[in-house]
Amino acid sequence: MTDRNSLSRYKKDDNGVLWIWNYVANARLKAGYKIKTLLHYEQSPFQEISIVDTKGFGKMLILDGTPQISTNEGFIYNEMISHIPIVTHPDPKKVAMIGGGDCGPAREAMKYAGIEQIDVVEIDQRVTEVCRMWLTPSSYYENDQRFHMIHRDGLDWIQENKGSYDVLIIDRPDPAGPGAKLFKPDFYQYVYDCLTNDGVVAFQSGSPYYNISTLKNTVKNLRDLFPIVRPYLVSIPIFPCGIWSFTIASKKWDPLQADLNKLQHKDTQYIDPEIFLASFVLPKYVKNIVDEGTP
Amino acid sequence: MTDRNSLSRYKKDDNGVLWIWNYVANARLKAGYKIKTLLHYEQSPFQEISIVDTKGFGKMLILDGTPQISTNEGFIYNEMISHIPIVTHPDPKKVAMIGGGDCGPAREAMKYAGIEQIDVVEIDQRVTEVCRMWLTPSSYYENDQRFHMIHRDGLDWIQENKGSYDVLIIDRPDPAGPGAKLFKPDFYQYVYDCLTNDGVVAFQSGSPYYNISTLKNTVKNLRDLFPIVRPYLVSIPIFPCGIWSFTIASKKWDPLQADLNKLQHKDTQYIDPEIFLASFVLPKYVKNIVDEGTP
Repeated sequence: MTDRNSLSRYKKDDNGVLWIWNYVANARLKAGYKIKTLLHYEQSPFQEISIVDTKGFGKMLILDGTPQISTNEGFIYNEMISHIPIVTHPDPKKVAMIGGGDCGPAREAMKYAGIEQIDVVEIDQRVTEVCRMWLTPSSYYENDQRFHMIHRDGLDWIQENKGSYDVLIIDRPDPAGPGAKLFKPDFYQYVYDCLTNDGVVAFQSGSPYYNISTLKNTVKNLRDLFPIVRPYLVSIPIFPCGIWSFTIASKKWDPLQADLNKLQHKDTQYIDPEIFLASFVLPKYVKNIVDEGTP
Repeated sequence: MTDRNSLSRYKKDDNGVLWIWNYVANARLKAGYKIKTLLHYEQSPFQEISIVDTKGFGKMLILDGTPQISTNEGFIYNEMISHIPIVTHPDPKKVAMIGGGDCGPAREAMKYAGIEQIDVVEIDQRVTEVCRMWLTPSSYYENDQRFHMIHRDGLDWIQENKGSYDVLIIDRPDPAGPGAKLFKPDFYQYVYDCLTNDGVVAFQSGSPYYNISTLKNTVKNLRDLFPIVRPYLVSIPIFPCGIWSFTIASKKWDPLQADLNKLQHKDTQYIDPEIFLASFVLPKYVKNIVDEGTP
């Protein structure tokens, strides 16, 4: 699906304006974003990394031609993948993110004073360095002594850290490219084993409109392991079709029973206690995808 | 913004495959939909009307190059613009839709046995005829004696029907093309006057991400007239950015106090009582758009 390792997704139109093209849903849908400036382009050992400045979304990180996050609406993804699992656990001390080298979810985790350790496991050091250069000032998070950047393959790292973490955030990319192994059934067992006895994890689990099998398989694999599995939804403008899912899996704590007084939402732009709960209410067509027993 | 009255939005790619292109957010974003077959194309007195069969969305109605509704996900728009105002009113007898010549919201209204009259006011008779030919079998709704199709300009019609309707559904298109007059301040007064003393109305009010002024102005104009004004949100995959708003305005009845036992959701695909309420929970960045006093 991904047209990797090439500049073919960048095209000038008849007026000489540069566009970046995202092909989704088995190339049934193309989304083009008008570029003001191509700020950065490189081929890392793992993927094509670029930073573009756009009119509609601000600065945007693009990996292998797929927009990942933007300065104008990145708060939606970053807040919703991080605050919900953190607040679901009553007293998290150790938190780790797999993926998310832009460190957006890590910055949200830093808002919780009780957290003692925040580890970000990102396979591609260049993603971190490029994001640090173009998207966020390093001082914003690097002065936080709880923060540790680990440049390792998440699949290797997680197998070496059993029973260690109260909260995991699986900020995996599409099931194409270097993130594909983070969608395999074995991976869910490693995640389970990496958590403490009352650990909580949140997964990026695809669009319920055009990645139906990603959401369905994520929920199914997690239900085989965890007593509490709850998908939740968010609208992310940078992603074509907008609607997107995350899935919480938990050994003991139910997000719907979480103490929402703990939610650190003073300077958030998306989440507050009401949205925390409303995001778990699924439209009927999404319930049909995740309900057990449906084909 | 709209490149009207032309075939310029249809383009073949290098492989000879036809695409339809939607330009949004002042042409900062383009969305292309892969077409299997161009089923219908005409220029009506009001606009360019086409029906395409796509791989990602099924059959799609396109007006002046802008996708309006599709067979695969049209249930989202149709259910959410109609059930919410209808259920907000405790006993609606007369309901009218302005716009929506595809009759999708009218079909949802027919699920309510208490409704005695359903009038659809659509300026462009050809939209109705084309949708009847390609999208929905006519028998599905034309045998319902409560249903009346009125081919008039909604702005003229509404000024002639004061104090008449319990529920209005303003299924207006973008504020470009023939629907522009349905966004002018005077129109909101006509809507108020057309409602009974305890009437309820729902408006299509744009994307809170890239039509911020549409949502903001709709809410502001309605708050000058109605005691109860509540925007609500939905994710519509056919619309780029996905997130979309409707706004309820009501003279007496609060949707958050509605009797949800009345909701006819046995054969819906999106709405149920939980989603009815959750759709009124706004992310903080949307609250900032609609809160009074913000610039």
